[in-house]
Amino acid sequence: MRKLWGGRFKQDTAELVDQFCASLPFDWRLYSYDIAGSIVHARMLARSGIIEQGEGEKIVEGLEQIKQALEAGELAFDRQQDEDIHSFVENRLIELIGPLGGKLHTARSRNDQVALDLRLYLRAEIKELQQGLLNLLKTLLALASVNLDVIMPGYTHLQRAQAVTLAHHLLAYYFMFKRDYQRWQDNLKRVNVLPLGSAALAGTGFPIDREWVAKELGFPALSLNSLDAVSDRDYLIEFLAVAATVVMHLSRLSEELILWASSEFNFIELDDAYATGSSIMPQKKNPDVAELTRGKSGRIYGHLLQLLTTLKGLPLAYNKDLQEDKEGVFDTVDTLQVILKIFPAMLATLKINKGEMAQAATKGFLNATDLADYLAGKGLPFRQAHAVVGRAVLYSLEKGIELEMIPLASWHRLFPELQDYFSEDLAQHLLLKNTVYSRRSLGGTSPEENRRVIEEEKAWLDAEYA
Amino acid sequence: MRKLWGGRFKQDTAELVDQFCASLPFDWRLYSYDIAGSIVHARMLARSGIIEQGEGEKIVEGLEQIKQALEAGELAFDRQQDEDIHSFVENRLIELIGPLGGKLHTARSRNDQVALDLRLYLRAEIKELQQGLLNLLKTLLALASVNLDVIMPGYTHLQRAQAVTLAHHLLAYYFMFKRDYQRWQDNLKRVNVLPLGSAALAGTGFPIDREWVAKELGFPALSLNSLDAVSDRDYLIEFLAVAATVVMHLSRLSEELILWASSEFNFIELDDAYATGSSIMPQKKNPDVAELTRGKSGRIYGHLLQLLTTLKGLPLAYNKDLQEDKEGVFDTVDTLQVILKIFPAMLATLKINKGEMAQAATKGFLNATDLADYLAGKGLPFRQAHAVVGRAVLYSLEKGIELEMIPLASWHRLFPELQDYFSEDLAQHLLLKNTVYSRRSLGGTSPEENRRVIEEEKAWLDAEYA
Amino acid sequence: MRKLWGGRFKQDTAELVDQFCASLPFDWRLYSYDIAGSIVHARMLARSGIIEQGEGEKIVEGLEQIKQALEAGELAFDRQQDEDIHSFVENRLIELIGPLGGKLHTARSRNDQVALDLRLYLRAEIKELQQGLLNLLKTLLALASVNLDVIMPGYTHLQRAQAVTLAHHLLAYYFMFKRDYQRWQDNLKRVNVLPLGSAALAGTGFPIDREWVAKELGFPALSLNSLDAVSDRDYLIEFLAVAATVVMHLSRLSEELILWASSEFNFIELDDAYATGSSIMPQKKNPDVAELTRGKSGRIYGHLLQLLTTLKGLPLAYNKDLQEDKEGVFDTVDTLQVILKIFPAMLATLKINKGEMAQAATKGFLNATDLADYLAGKGLPFRQAHAVVGRAVLYSLEKGIELEMIPLASWHRLFPELQDYFSEDLAQHLLLKNTVYSRRSLGGTSPEENRRVIEEEKAWLDAEYA
Amino acid sequence: MRKLWGGRFKQDTAELVDQFCASLPFDWRLYSYDIAGSIVHARMLARSGIIEQGEGEKIVEGLEQIKQALEAGELAFDRQQDEDIHSFVENRLIELIGPLGGKLHTARSRNDQVALDLRLYLRAEIKELQQGLLNLLKTLLALASVNLDVIMPGYTHLQRAQAVTLAHHLLAYYFMFKRDYQRWQDNLKRVNVLPLGSAALAGTGFPIDREWVAKELGFPALSLNSLDAVSDRDYLIEFLAVAATVVMHLSRLSEELILWASSEFNFIELDDAYATGSSIMPQKKNPDVAELTRGKSGRIYGHLLQLLTTLKGLPLAYNKDLQEDKEGVFDTVDTLQVILKIFPAMLATLKINKGEMAQAATKGFLNATDLADYLAGKGLPFRQAHAVVGRAVLYSLEKGIELEMIPLASWHRLFPELQDYFSEDLAQHLLLKNTVYSRRSLGGTSPEENRRVIEEEKAWLDAEYA
Repeated sequence: MRKLWGGRFKQDTAELVDQFCASLPFDWRLYSYDIAGSIVHARMLARSGIIEQGEGEKIVEGLEQIKQALEAGELAFDRQQDEDIHSFVENRLIELIGPLGGKLHTARSRNDQVALDLRLYLRAEIKELQQGLLNLLKTLLALASVNLDVIMPGYTHLQRAQAVTLAHHLLAYYFMFKRDYQRWQDNLKRVNVLPLGSAALAGTGFPIDREWVAKELGFPALSLNSLDAVSDRDYLIEFLAVAATVVMHLSRLSEELILWASSEFNFIELDDAYATGSSIMPQKKNPDVAELTRGKSGRIYGHLLQLLTTLKGLPLAYNKDLQEDKEGVFDTVDTLQVILKIFPAMLATLKINKGEMAQAATKGFLNATDLADYLAGKGLPFRQAHAVVGRAVLYSLEKGIELEMIPLASWHRLFPELQDYFSEDLAQHLLLKNTVYSRRSLGGTSPEENRRVIEEEKAWLDAEYA
Repeated sequence: MRKLWGGRFKQDTAELVDQFCASLPFDWRLYSYDIAGSIVHARMLARSGIIEQGEGEKIVEGLEQIKQALEAGELAFDRQQDEDIHSFVENRLIELIGPLGGKLHTARSRNDQVALDLRLYLRAEIKELQQGLLNLLKTLLALASVNLDVIMPGYTHLQRAQAVTLAHHLLAYYFMFKRDYQRWQDNLKRVNVLPLGSAALAGTGFPIDREWVAKELGFPALSLNSLDAVSDRDYLIEFLAVAATVVMHLSRLSEELILWASSEFNFIELDDAYATGSSIMPQKKNPDVAELTRGKSGRIYGHLLQLLTTLKGLPLAYNKDLQEDKEGVFDTVDTLQVILKIFPAMLATLKINKGEMAQAATKGFLNATDLADYLAGKGLPFRQAHAVVGRAVLYSLEKGIELEMIPLASWHRLFPELQDYFSEDLAQHLLLKNTVYSRRSLGGTSPEENRRVIEEEKAWLDAEYA
Repeated sequence: MRKLWGGRFKQDTAELVDQFCASLPFDWRLYSYDIAGSIVHARMLARSGIIEQGEGEKIVEGLEQIKQALEAGELAFDRQQDEDIHSFVENRLIELIGPLGGKLHTARSRNDQVALDLRLYLRAEIKELQQGLLNLLKTLLALASVNLDVIMPGYTHLQRAQAVTLAHHLLAYYFMFKRDYQRWQDNLKRVNVLPLGSAALAGTGFPIDREWVAKELGFPALSLNSLDAVSDRDYLIEFLAVAATVVMHLSRLSEELILWASSEFNFIELDDAYATGSSIMPQKKNPDVAELTRGKSGRIYGHLLQLLTTLKGLPLAYNKDLQEDKEGVFDTVDTLQVILKIFPAMLATLKINKGEMAQAATKGFLNATDLADYLAGKGLPFRQAHAVVGRAVLYSLEKGIELEMIPLASWHRLFPELQDYFSEDLAQHLLLKNTVYSRRSLGGTSPEENRRVIEEEKAWLDAEYA
Repeated sequence: MRKLWGGRFKQDTAELVDQFCASLPFDWRLYSYDIAGSIVHARMLARSGIIEQGEGEKIVEGLEQIKQALEAGELAFDRQQDEDIHSFVENRLIELIGPLGGKLHTARSRNDQVALDLRLYLRAEIKELQQGLLNLLKTLLALASVNLDVIMPGYTHLQRAQAVTLAHHLLAYYFMFKRDYQRWQDNLKRVNVLPLGSAALAGTGFPIDREWVAKELGFPALSLNSLDAVSDRDYLIEFLAVAATVVMHLSRLSEELILWASSEFNFIELDDAYATGSSIMPQKKNPDVAELTRGKSGRIYGHLLQLLTTLKGLPLAYNKDLQEDKEGVFDTVDTLQVILKIFPAMLATLKINKGEMAQAATKGFLNATDLADYLAGKGLPFRQAHAVVGRAVLYSLEKGIELEMIPLASWHRLFPELQDYFSEDLAQHLLLKNTVYSRRSLGGTSPEENRRVIEEEKAWLDAEYA
C-alpha cells in the first residue's frame, strides 16, 4: 500500500498520540493527594512486613521531599517527560532514592491509585463547597431576618399574584440550598470509601492491611470488590448531579436578581463591587455576576452529561475512557467554589428598594384570593366564592379602584343574594398588610411564622458550622 | 393589518391552545394520589372546623365513589372536558354531590395539590423500583454464590489482563446496584415532605392542621416555606439522576452480556425466553433485551437533562414550564420497572459456558503480574520485577509457551544475576487457579474472600427485604 | 440453584419481554409510509421479473385495501398480535391474499424497510414544519411592517441601552427562524436518500432496480453502502439539532413575551385566546403558551441527547438499540407542529402598548452613545468621547434631567476645553427619535433600513411559498 | 445589619469578581482574528472619511506591531491588567500610538467585535477540520481499495449475520464522515456572515461601508439585523452538533477497533505507535487511542448541551451569559483536530488478520439468507423459503455440518414437496465467496460494486482537495 501521508508524519503523529493520551496537563492537581496516599501505602507495606521498616521510612522521606519541592516551586511538572501525576511522583522518587523507590508500587496499581486520589480530592472539595453553601445559607437567613415585614408581590407566571414578604422569598432559596447541602452530605457517604488495595482489578496476594490504610486516610468504609473499585465512577456522577442542582438553583436566584435590577422592576440595586459599570452610562449597573452564573448552568449540566455518556456501555474493568472523568469535575469544583464565595457578599451588599417593592404589591388585586377566602370562611363554597371575586374585580376595574376601596353598601348592592356574607370587617381583611400577616399556616408568609422558621434554622446552621 | 390566516383559523388555534396546555392526557395517572390527598384534606377541613363535619363526610364519600367508578371502568377521562386530573376530580365531585363539592378546594390551590400528588406518586414508585433492585441484587448474589470458582479472564482495555472468577465479576455489579438502592433511599428523605397547605404560593389564613395531614399521609416531614414548596422540583432531578445511574450500570452489564453472547466470546447462552430467535437461523439468538436496555440509557439521560433545562433560570413561584415535570419522570419509572422485572429472570436463566471462560483465561499471560509479585515478594523492587516479566513474556512468545511452562533452569539461565529470586515454588505460583485463589486481600477475587462477602451481603439483603 | 422467583414468573416475564421489545405501540404511525414503500417495492419486483406481473398487481391491491381499511377505521392495530408495523402489514397481507403475500419480502429486509419508512416520514414532516416556519416568518414580517416606527428600549444585560424600533426587534427573530428554515433545507438533502435495496446489511443478489424505486418514491439520491444504509441515523440527529435550535429561538421569544406581558414591563397584552385567564382575577392573563414553549425546550434538547447517547459506541450494523430512534423524533415533530401553528396566531393578535414602550425608552439615558458618537464624529477620539459622556450623565443625574435637556451653554461650561465639539445641533441629535432614525447602517434600526430589509425578505418569502 | 464576613472579605471578593468575569484567560486565542478585524475596520473608517487617512495608517501600523510582538513572544497577555482580548489590544494600541488609538473604536462596539472574532476563528478551524476529514476519507478509501475481497462476518446484534468484505465495512464509515464533511460545508454558509457594523445592538449613524469590510475579510454575506447579529450564537450550536456527530461516528469506529483488537476477535493488530504497550506484558497492546476517542464523545456532547442550555430563554440582545460561548467550542476544536490527525495514521498502519476474518465468516450459517434467496428466486414465496431455511439449519446443526455441505439428495429427501426448487447449482450458490460476489445490487457488498463506488468517490475526493 502506498504511503498515505508524508515522510515525517508518522513520527509527529506518535508524538501527538503521547500528548493525546497524557493526563499530566490536568491531573497534576492531584499531587498532594497522590503523595498522601503513597505515604500511607508505604507505611502499610512496612508495617505488614512486605518491605523493610527502613525502606518504608526512606520512601516516606522521599515523598515528603517531593511534596515540599513542589510547594516551594523548586520542582515543576514536565509534560514531555511524564504521562500522569503518578508516574511523575514515582519517577522523581526513584531519581531521589534510587531503585528502592520502585518498591512503592508493590501491591498497588495505577488503577486503584487514581481511584484513591480522586476520592481524596473530591472529599476535600465537597467539604469546602459545603462551607460555601453554609455561608450562603447564613447570608440568606440574616437578610431574611432583617426583611421580615418588607412586603412585595409574589408572582406566578411572572404575573403578580399575592403579596408576600421579602423574607419569605429569600427563605425559599434558603431551603433549596439547604437540601443541596444535605445531598452532598449523602454523596460523601459514597465518596468516602477506600479503593486502595484493589490493585489492577483483582486484588492482590500480598498480605496488605486495607483497614489500617482506611483508618489512616480517614475512610469510614472500604470497597468490597476490586473490579468495581477500579472502574466505579458513579460517585462522580452523583457529585455532578448535586452540582447541577446547585447551579440550577443559583440560575433561578440569578434570574430574579437580573429582573429585580432592571429599570422595570427596580426592586434592588447591586453594590458597585458586584456589578459592572459602564463608563459611558455611570448610572447603569450590569448584573454580570448573576448573568454569568446563570450562563454557567450550561457548563455544569454539560459536565454531568459528559460523564454519563462516557460511562455508558463500558465493560469492566478499567478502560482508557475513564481518563475523561477528571476535567469536568475539576471545572465544576472551580466554578462553584468561586460562585459560592461571591454570592454571599453580593447578596449582603444589595440595596433593597423597599418602597418600590411595597408599591408594586398594591396594584393588581393581590388580595383577590383573600376575598374568596373571606367568603369561604363564612361558608360559601370556595368555587362559588371564586366566581364572586371575578365579578368584583371586574367591577373594580371599571371603577378604577381597588377591592379594599369598595364600601359595604356596594358589596350588598352588587351581590344582593349574598348580603350575609359581607360584613364590616371585610375592608380590614383586604388590607395588603393584613393579607400577609394572616397567612400564619406552617410555612406561610406571615412575619410571625417566618420568625419562627428563622430561629429553627439558625440553630441548625450553628450546629452544622460547629 | 390584513389577516395572516384563514377564516376559521383563530378558533382552531384556540382549540389547539387548549390541547397544548392540557395535562390530563398524562396526569390522569395521578388520579389515585389526587383522590387520596383530597380525602385527607377534606377530613382535615372538617376536623379543624373550616367546614362542617357532615360536609366533610359527604365530600369523602363522593371522592371514594369517583375512585371506585374509575377503577371499575365506569368513569373515563375525557380530554375534551377537563384540562387536568385535579379539575377532572373536582368537576365530577360537584356533579355528584352538588355545590358542596366546591368546598373541597378551601385552603388549597392546584399548586400545592399537584406538588402533593407528584410526591405521593414518586414515593410509591421509588419503593417499587427499590424492590426491583433488591430482586436484581438477590439474583446476582445467588448467581455469584454458585460460580465462586468459575475462572474467567478479567479485562482492562478489553484485553485479557488477570484471571478472576465469574462470582467476582457478578459481585462488581452487585455493589453498583446496591449503591443505587441506597441513593434512592437518600432521595426518599427529600421526596417524603408534605407540601400541602402551601396554597397558591403564600400559605393560607385558614386554621389548617398540616401536621395532622402529614401524619395521615405518612409524611415524616413538612415543607417550611410555601413559595419553595409549590415550585420545588429538585427531588425529581435527584430521582432522575439516580435513575440515570441505574441505567448506566445496566448499560454496562448489557454490554458485557452482548459481548459474552457473541460467537467470538461464547461465554454465555441466553435462555430462549430472553432472546429473539431468527426463524431463518434457528441457532442464532439476538440479545435484544440487553441491546434495548443499553439503548434506553439515552432515554433516561435525556429526561434528566430535560428537567434540568426546564428549571434553569425560572423565577419563583409557579410557572407553566413546570408542567413539563411529569412525562419524563413517568417514562423513566415505566422503563425501569420493566427492565428490573426482566433482568433478574434473564440473568437467572443464563447458560454459562464455564469451559469457554476458563479456556479463555489460559491464554494471554494472565499470570504476568503474579510473576512480578512473586519477585517483588522476594525483595526485588517492583519496578525492576516489572521489567523482568517483560523479558520473560517475550521469551515465552518466541518459544510459543506460557510462563508456567518455563523450567526453573531456564529462568536461571535467562536471568543469571537474579537467580536467588527464582525457586521451585514458582511454577505452582503461576498456575492460573493459584493466581485466583491467592488474591485474598479484602475485596479481592479469591473464592474465600467472595464467600465471606456474599455472606455479609445476604444478611444485609434479608434485612432490607424484611 | 433454587428458583429465584415464583411459579408463573417466567411466563409473565416472557410476555414482558415481548412488550419490552415491541415497537408497534409507537411505529404504527409509519403505516402509510410502510405501505407506500411496499407498493413501489412490489411493482419493482414485478418490473424486474423477480415476481410475476400478476403477482405484483395482487400484492399492490392487497396493500391498498389494507391502507383503506386502516383509514376507514375498519382495521385496528393489535399490539398483542404483531411486534411492529412491518409485521402488521405483511401479516394482514398474507391473511388477505394468501401465501403470495410472502413474496413481498423478496430482496428486502426489515432493516432497509424501517430505514425507508423513517426517511419518508421525516421528509414529509420537515416540509410541514418548514411551512410552519414560513407562516411564522410571514407573521413576523407583517408585524414588523406595521411597527416600523414604534420606538422601544433595546436592552443589554436586561438594562435599557439604546432605543430601537419594535420592527427591528421582531426582525431579529425573523432572521433566527429563517436560518432554521434553511438548516432544515440542508438537512433534507441527507434525509432524501433511498436506503431500500440494502436488504439486511449486505445488499442482495436479486436483480433489483433501485434507481426506478428512487424515482417512484421521489428520492434524488441513493445510499451507496448497504451497511451504512441500515445503521445510519445521523440525519435524525441533524433533524433534532435543528429542532433544538428552533425551540431555543422560541424560548428566547417566549421569554420576551413573558417579560413584556408582566405588569412591570406592560409592553403587550395577549389576546384572550392565547392566554389563560383566571376566574378569580379577570384582569390577569397568564402567558401559558409562552411559558410552556419555553419549558418544552428541555424536552427537545433531551431527545437530541437521547439519540446521541444511544448511538455512541454502537458497532455496525443493525443493533436493537436503534429501535430507540423513533419516539423522541415523533415527540419533537408533534411538539413543534403545534407550537408553529399557535405562535403566528398568538403574535398576530398581540395588543401592543406603543405608548408604554416609547415611554420606557425616554428614561435611562438611551442616547448616551449618541452623544459619544456626536463628539467622535467631530474628531474627538472615541475613548475620550466615552469618558466625557460619563461625566455628562453624572451631571444629569444630579440635576434630575435628561441629556437632551442640557442647554449649549451648560455643555460649554462643563467642558471648557472641548467647546468646539459642542454646537447648536446637539439637542436635535440627541432626540430619541433622531437617535433611532440616524442608525441607517446596513442592518441598523432605522425605519428606512428596516423597510428595505422587509421588502427584500418579502420577495424571498414569496419565492419560498411558491 | 451586622457584617456577615470578615474585614478584608469585600475587597477580596471584588477581586474574585474581576477574575470571575474576565475572559482573557481563554479568549486570548482570538488575538490574530481580533487584530485582523481591527485593521480592516480602521481602513474602512479612513476610506469612509470617518477618520483621517493618516490616522488610519497609524492605527494599522500600531496593530501590526502588536501582532508581531505577540508572535515574537515580546508581548504577553497579562490577566491582571485586561479583562478580555479586545481591551488588551486596544490598550496596547493606545500605549503605542497615543490617544489616536482611541479612534479605532469609532462606529464599533465590543458586541459586534467579539461576534466578528468568533466567526473568523471558526471559519478557519472548520476548514482545517474539513481537511482532517478529507485525510480520513482518503485513508479509508485507500484501505478499502486494497481490501476489496477480504471476507469477514457482517454483524447484526453483534451476532454474525452475513459475509461482507472488509472494504465494504470500511466504506460504511467513509460515507458517514463524508456526510459530516458536507454538514460543515453547510454550516460554513451561516458562519460566513459579517456581523461587524452592528455596533452595540442598534447599528450606527456613522457612514460605514460594511460591504467593503465584508469583501476585505472574505465574507460572502452580511448580517441584516444588528440585534440579531450581536446575540446570535446558533452557528456555534450547528458547529457543535456536527462535531457531536463526527465524534459519534468516531466512537462507533473506535468500538469496532477495540473489539477487533481483542483476543476474542483477533481481526487486527494496532501498530506500536498507536497502542499503549505494557512493559509487563509486551504482547499486550491497549487500544488507548480508540478508547479515549470513544470516551471523548461525552465531552463534545456535553459542550453541545452546555451552549443549548446557556442560550435557552435569553432575551435580546447581549447578555453576559453569552461569554460562555467560547470554551466549549475551543475544546471541541482542539479535541477533534488531534483525533483527525491521529486516526488516518492509526488506520493506515493497522495489521489486518485476513485469515482470522475469513475463518470467522465460515462459521455460523452466514449463507442462510442466500439459501432463502435461492428458493425465492425459484418462485417460492420468501416467507415460506424463510421457514425452509430454519429447518435446514436445524438439520445441519444436528449433523454438525454447514449448509453448503448438504448433498442434493439430502435436500430432496428433507423437502420432498419442494424438490423442484433444489438443483445442482445450490452448493455453488452457497459458497461463502459466491454469497459475497453475488450481492451486486447498487451499494451492495460485492467487490465489483465496491470498486465502482471507490472510483466515483476518488473523483469526488480529488475535486474537494483541489
